[in-house]
Amino acid sequence: MITLRPIGVVVEGMPVEKSVEWSRWRNTSFIEVYPEYREGLRGLGEYSHVYVIYFMHLERRVQLVIRPRGRSDMPEVGVFAFRGPTRPNPIGLTLCRLIEVTADGLRVLGLDAFPGTPVLDIKPYDYYDVVEKPRVPEWFIRLWSENHSSGHPMP
Amino acid sequence: MITLRPIGVVVEGMPVEKSVEWSRWRNTSFIEVYPEYREGLRGLGEYSHVYVIYFMHLERRVQLVIRPRGRSDMPEVGVFAFRGPTRPNPIGLTLCRLIEVTADGLRVLGLDAFPGTPVLDIKPYDYYDVVEKPRVPEWFIRLWSENHSSGHPMP
Repeated sequence: MITLRPIGVVVEGMPVEKSVEWSRWRNTSFIEVYPEYREGLRGLGEYSHVYVIYFMHLERRVQLVIRPRGRSDMPEVGVFAFRGPTRPNPIGLTLCRLIEVTADGLRVLGLDAFPGTPVLDIKPYDYYDVVEKPRVPEWFIRLWSENHSSGHPMP
Repeated sequence: MITLRPIGVVVEGMPVEKSVEWSRWRNTSFIEVYPEYREGLRGLGEYSHVYVIYFMHLERRVQLVIRPRGRSDMPEVGVFAFRGPTRPNPIGLTLCRLIEVTADGLRVLGLDAFPGTPVLDIKPYDYYDVVEKPRVPEWFIRLWSENHSSGHPMP
């Protein structure tokens, strides 16, 4: 058993209610970092992008094999071959554009986490994280193309 | 308090003894995935790169402000602006090249984790993770150039 303590919390984020108009590519999120950890933000503002690692606290299901988005035109894939939330450890990892580091946290674009989500770590995105042409499955490219053609920008 | 359970373990990895000749860019690592989670690997082999999320179980120090690599020619930066291990939650995140998915786990290149390290999650690297020209601090570029000119390849 491994125990972790949140270093902060998502205070503005993706609404739990699906009816609210919100897009992770248009609406920013705000992460409050708890006072005892704020010193750790020093120098973060020099990066353009950060990883947010969080605990998907509302997630209860574990499903080891799923069809992405529950779609019948998608193959069955293992949860480690997919970024969905039904994981043995519901750890979320999202690459975000860093908008601003403030006195009490950070504002980001691209985060897909609900308000109240405990944040476990913030890591800067650097040159070791760039793969210019990663190989991905055919089904991923299909999903990507659908979203991409409807105009959502990269983070 | 958040509790997590490992989904696997690093069985071949970076030697704890610094005297052993080993490079994460030359030597592969093997992650055993525990039997009850192996179904989750289905389809992972179609990706070229994966993120390995792990618990740095030998790490005890938390240091919120550090000089990268302890070098006096580096500035003091916050731990969230640096990928080092002295974090409030010692979660490791490494982008690896996927070499092979086997019946009981996966072989990767680029991992910097000791044998015995508990693995928390495996996530595929996809198009949402690509930032072509991320902005990084000047000190990072200096470190990168030193390593890069000595010929280590990208993962």
